[in-house]
Formats: sequence, structure tokens, C-alpha cells
Amino acid sequence: MSLTGNAIIGQSGGPTIVINASLVGAIQAAWDLDEIQHFYGAIHGMDGLLNEQLCDLFREDPDVVEAMKLVPSAGLGTSRIKPKEQDLERAMEVFRAHDVRYFFYTGGDDSQLACHMISELAKSSDWEMRVVGIPKTIDNNLVVTDCCPGFGSAARYAALCCQYVGRDAEAFGTLEVVEVMGRHEGWLTGATSAARPEPDAPPHLVYLPEVQVTRQQLISDVQEVYDRYGFAVIAVSEGFAFAGEDQSTTSDKVDEFGHSRLGGVAQWLGDVLEEATGVRARNDKLGNLQRCFAATTSQVDLDQAYAVGRTAVEWAVDGQTDIMITIERENDDPYQWECGATSLMTVAGESKAVPREWINEAGNDVTEEFVTYCKPLLVGRACELDPGFSSLPKFSLHVIETKLDAYER
Amino acid sequence: MSLTGNAIIGQSGGPTIVINASLVGAIQAAWDLDEIQHFYGAIHGMDGLLNEQLCDLFREDPDVVEAMKLVPSAGLGTSRIKPKEQDLERAMEVFRAHDVRYFFYTGGDDSQLACHMISELAKSSDWEMRVVGIPKTIDNNLVVTDCCPGFGSAARYAALCCQYVGRDAEAFGTLEVVEVMGRHEGWLTGATSAARPEPDAPPHLVYLPEVQVTRQQLISDVQEVYDRYGFAVIAVSEGFAFAGEDQSTTSDKVDEFGHSRLGGVAQWLGDVLEEATGVRARNDKLGNLQRCFAATTSQVDLDQAYAVGRTAVEWAVDGQTDIMITIERENDDPYQWECGATSLMTVAGESKAVPREWINEAGNDVTEEFVTYCKPLLVGRACELDPGFSSLPKFSLHVIETKLDAYER
Repeated sequence: MSLTGNAIIGQSGGPTIVINASLVGAIQAAWDLDEIQHFYGAIHGMDGLLNEQLCDLFREDPDVVEAMKLVPSAGLGTSRIKPKEQDLERAMEVFRAHDVRYFFYTGGDDSQLACHMISELAKSSDWEMRVVGIPKTIDNNLVVTDCCPGFGSAARYAALCCQYVGRDAEAFGTLEVVEVMGRHEGWLTGATSAARPEPDAPPHLVYLPEVQVTRQQLISDVQEVYDRYGFAVIAVSEGFAFAGEDQSTTSDKVDEFGHSRLGGVAQWLGDVLEEATGVRARNDKLGNLQRCFAATTSQVDLDQAYAVGRTAVEWAVDGQTDIMITIERENDDPYQWECGATSLMTVAGESKAVPREWINEAGNDVTEEFVTYCKPLLVGRACELDPGFSSLPKFSLHVIETKLDAYER
Repeated sequence: MSLTGNAIIGQSGGPTIVINASLVGAIQAAWDLDEIQHFYGAIHGMDGLLNEQLCDLFREDPDVVEAMKLVPSAGLGTSRIKPKEQDLERAMEVFRAHDVRYFFYTGGDDSQLACHMISELAKSSDWEMRVVGIPKTIDNNLVVTDCCPGFGSAARYAALCCQYVGRDAEAFGTLEVVEVMGRHEGWLTGATSAARPEPDAPPHLVYLPEVQVTRQQLISDVQEVYDRYGFAVIAVSEGFAFAGEDQSTTSDKVDEFGHSRLGGVAQWLGDVLEEATGVRARNDKLGNLQRCFAATTSQVDLDQAYAVGRTAVEWAVDGQTDIMITIERENDDPYQWECGATSLMTVAGESKAVPREWINEAGNDVTEEFVTYCKPLLVGRACELDPGFSSLPKFSLHVIETKLDAYER
């Protein structure tokens, strides 16, 4: 059933290397669809929506839009606001004021929950609109979907880092601890192992938050690898903790979602290992670069990010609502996939850990099943945007006039 | 004057992305020269030399040798030994035992000093040999030479990181502090600014160890940038300290050269800035990846690394000794250079800071002169070795028989 009006799209949560590709997919789909008259970007996600900070995406230069596919991080700005009841009502006011009939929101499980709440509120009101979530997270922890756009490129970067830093550790004959993003799920950490070209390539040991090992076990694992190769590379999730011990590296500060800030586990674990083994231990925290280092983007990830953005718009206009677009795997090797959809309720606030059977019994590596799943997501490289340090493209963000009173949160 | 015999080459100090290219240049030059009968690699640099851990480089597969050009870190292993008097005498014994008439050593100022000491000892003995230093350091602090192989690629990586992480900070509207390697010299930190495509691109502020600023000044600099752009990226050298305050982030541990281990300044400074400005501050320490992330190698750097290795061997066979190969700049734009040489004594143990006039008066950015100097060293990208995660090539390291008693250091 045809629904004509305006659309809003927002980007939420931690940015990724390919989140703009989803936005570009959405914009380019909307260009050809009469049902979307104006396409607005919410500047800084939920913040922009609530404060009516909206920009006119159809006024962006089409060449810039195309080029933004390869630009990392959220080109509209992002937000970590968790909307409350009154925020949702405000959102509805904004939708009405700007004749918004389509809302697209790109994010992880917290953001899909926000999306779902908006969808529910819209359904219970007399304002007909369609709400579609676009998946995004380097953590790869959304349920239902085969994988999450953003993960493959982050995984590719993390895996390359482990390969390269392995040569550095080998040259010195040292231990090297690499800290990979991931609070409760070890997808990204496991990916560094999945990319190994042969079994003795680094990282030699990977510890995912899904399985805890004892201090004694880990030290013994590391000693064994070091005795065999004369060096050792260990990848750990930032949420790492020894079995039976408190997380040692949690900061007392919290982020905007109320999660404690993590980081520092590699340095801490390096010190533990150096003391236990007597071997010099170095460490690297891959940090924010995992979600923005665009020079080594995964081609599959880029393609999927674009596709979920494009599909979200097309399917919404076709009449679907209250869904998140998913990736459905058709075949492992060669990797084949297509877009699917699932109801927002199935994904909102849910998260998917690495299955126990995809982690080996010792809890220090992933299994072949994990490798089969993960490797196709990261092996191919997209072209690099900017080998010559010319300016990174940027949206102009033509802000439209507000129609409501300022919002006090 | 023709001198025929064997040769030893070693790699020393912190590895770089292109140090193997110098080794490959040396090997490939030696293939065609009758004067070098056997070419040995010292495994783990000075350690290997003293312990007679030598491998036969002419037995390496020529295809592997060629491929090693693009493999980061020291393929022969590295060492941070500072040789003492008795070590030098032992080295001479090894040279005599293996009929070594050529010694090549790839490293920074400490390593060139070791090289010089060996050269002096050889001169004062009856053992005719030629000693040539090959420059290498991501710190870019060797004197005389225009630049140091290893710097351009490290600088390219660091600059890319700042560009990308800038988009991440912009998306959130946060402060971002990036920690770049450099104890006493700010070449690498300055390079992140030199690569900026336009004046308002990140990093907005760079602090080099050559000029200290007060706490108040830095906070005011950052506040000003944040007020203008709504985010700010600040690059600091790991040796950063406020004027009039002690270095806050020095570890009580020391490295093999007796230098205190650095690191953590970005996190510390981020906390300082967050408290002072009330704006969330993130941080990234670029760490060991600066010297091994080979996916974004600088082409000029790769070419120069190869050339200094090749030239070292050619000029030694031509009769030169007690020199380090240098890069001589012929023209800034287009950048033109050729290899030159300087006596080891001029470079041994010396280091070159960024000239004060290449840093702006406020001490928070580099000047146009710095940009003119630096930009050509990092703008062009070499081809990537391994976009598909196939195995990284590796030397076979065919170890030769020892001829001396074991060495007790």
C-alpha cells in the first residue's frame, strides 16, 4: 500500500568503517522512489531527532554521496541516547511536524530497541508510518542476522594487526598481547584467529569473554607457545577476566549507555605474563581504530552495509514495517548471501554470543566452524579511498527549519 | 681495491615496516658481486653475531627474497644489545673464523655506534674488512641523512590513523588524544599534521617533545579547537610532558638499552582534558603497529629502504668503509633523492630533533617548512602484500656450522 511523505534516517551507537555505506545505500534507493519526498538525516542520531536537527539529504551532491561509501564513521554524527517514554512522544511530534512517514535507524541492539519502541508508539497512534532498523555493529552480536555490517572490516583490521605485530614479536622473541574490542562477545577476537593462513600463524592464543580460563591455565598456554616458537601472540577481548577473579581493568567511568568503560586489559595481562614467564611482554590495544581504519575495508562488509541500507528503504516503501533488515547466508564457500528481514522485537535488546561449540575445549582458540563462518567476511579487501591524503569527502548537512519549540530532555 | 671474502648483515633495534626491504636490497646486490662469496645473516642481530648464529642468505629462495621486500619487521630477528669491549673482540673473532670481510648493520644511532666501534677495532687490527651502516628508524632522528627508512611508512600509518579517528571523534563530538612514538624527537608526531589535506583536518593540535607547553596553555588550545569544530584531535609524542611538570607516564621498567619504557600518555592526557573541559575524551596509543602495519606502506620509504641496502653492499665492494649510507634530497616537489654516504663517526650516537623553527611559536603545530620536508615521504602508497590473508613469506634461515667455542657474555 503506497505511503507518501518524508523520511528520516539516523546513525546510532559506535560508528563503523562502513556505516556510511548503509546511509549511501538508503539515499541512493530513495532517489528513485516517488513515495519519499524529502529525505532527512537526523544529526547525531536520536539527539538530532529529538532536537529537530535535521538535514536535507537530497540536497547533497550526488558525487559526494557516492564517495561517502568509503568514508568511515557516522557522517551524520552519532548518539548514545537511550530514549525514555517522553523522548518517544517527542519523536512522534517531530514526525508529525515534518510529515515523516518513514523512519530508519542504523545501530546495534540498543538502537534496534529504540527503533522498536518508536514502531510500537507509531502503531498505537493514528500516525501511519513505517519503521525499519538497519543493522550495524563491529561487535557482530545482533541476533537472527548472519553477521552485522561493520564487523567484517573491523575484523579485517584486527586480524591484519595480529599478523603484522606477530612479526614484530617474533623479531624480538617476546610475548605480545593484543586487546580487541568486545565486552561480552568475542566475535572480533575470534576473527583474528579465523584469518590465520596456517595453524602456527599469530595469534597463537585467543581468549573470548564467552569462556573464562584460570590464571594458571593461561600462563601455561602462553609458556607452551613461547617454548615452541620463541615468541607468542595472544589476542584478548577487552572484557577479559580470569575465571574466579574480578575484572581488573574496568574503569570507574561509564559511557552514555551506562556501561563501564573498558580498556587496559592487554597492558595488565602483559604485566601478569611478564612476571610469570620472565619473558618481556609488549601489548597493543587496537582501540577506536577498529571502527574507523578505512584503508583496509572488507569488500563483503562494504557490500552488505550498502545493501542493508538500500533494502531498508525499498522494503519500507513496499509496505514493510517494524523490521530490521538482516543478512541471510546462502552458502559458506563461495560465500553467498542476500538480504532478509526479521521483526524488530526479535532483535531489540538481544545479543548473540559466540556458541560454546565454536570455541575449543581449552578455551584458547576458535574451532573450524568459527573459521568457516568468519573468514569470508573479512578476506577480501575493498579499494582504498584515499591513498594520497586528499580531503576525505564530507556531507554538507543542509539543516532544515525547525517547526517545534525547543525540547528539554 | 678488490677485497674478496664473506659478508655478514644484521638488523638491530626496533623493526620497521621496510627494514626487510634494505636486507633484500643488500642480498640482491650481493648476488651479482664476485667479491662476496657467502652472505650470512646474523640471527637476532648482535646476539647472532656474538653467538655465531649465522644463516646462509644465498641459500634463500630468490622468490622469497623478492617477496620479503613487503614483509614488515626484522626477518632475521633483531637485538638491542649494546656491545661492550669484549663483545667487539668476540665479533672480530667471528669475522676471522668465517673469513668475513664485509659487515653491514641496519639500525638507528645506537646501532650505528656499535657499527663504528667495530669499524675502529677492525682498523686497528690486521684484519682487513669493510663496515657499512644502513640507516633505519621510525624515529627519523639520525643526523646527516635527509630521512630514515622506516619513518615514511610509520608516518603514513600514524597520519591515516589521525584522519580516520578524527571522523570517529567528530561523529561523537568528543576529544581524541592520539599517542605517537617518539621519546625525544617529534618527527612522527609532526608527520600526522604534515599529511593533513586542509588546515582544519585532524589532528588539530600536535605536541612534539622539542617544545613543552604548560598545562594551562594546552587546555586552552584544546578548548578553542573544540569550541570551533565541536570535536578535537590532539596528537602527542609518547615522551610528552607539560612544561614545569614531571613526565607522568614513564614506567619504572626499562628496555634493553636502559631507556625507561614509555606509553600511556594519551590516556593520562585524555583524563586531564576531560576533567578540565567537561568533554568526553577518548584516546588511542598507536603502539607497535607504527613499525609493522604493512598494509599502508609508503612507496618512497620502501624505495629508499631498498636503495640504502643495495648501495651499502655495492659501495663496500667498491672500497668504501666506515660509512653509513644516507638519503640526499635533490628536490622537494617533485621529491627527488639519491643515496649518499657519511662517516660513521658523524652519526654514531647522535640524534636530530625537529628544528625549533619547524614548530610554530605556540608549540602546538608544525610549520610549512616541516610540511614541505615531510609530506613527500608519506603520501604515496606501495602495493599491499597480502590483501587475501595468504601466508606471509618467511626466510628459511639455513644456519651454518659454528667454528668457535660458545660465548659467555
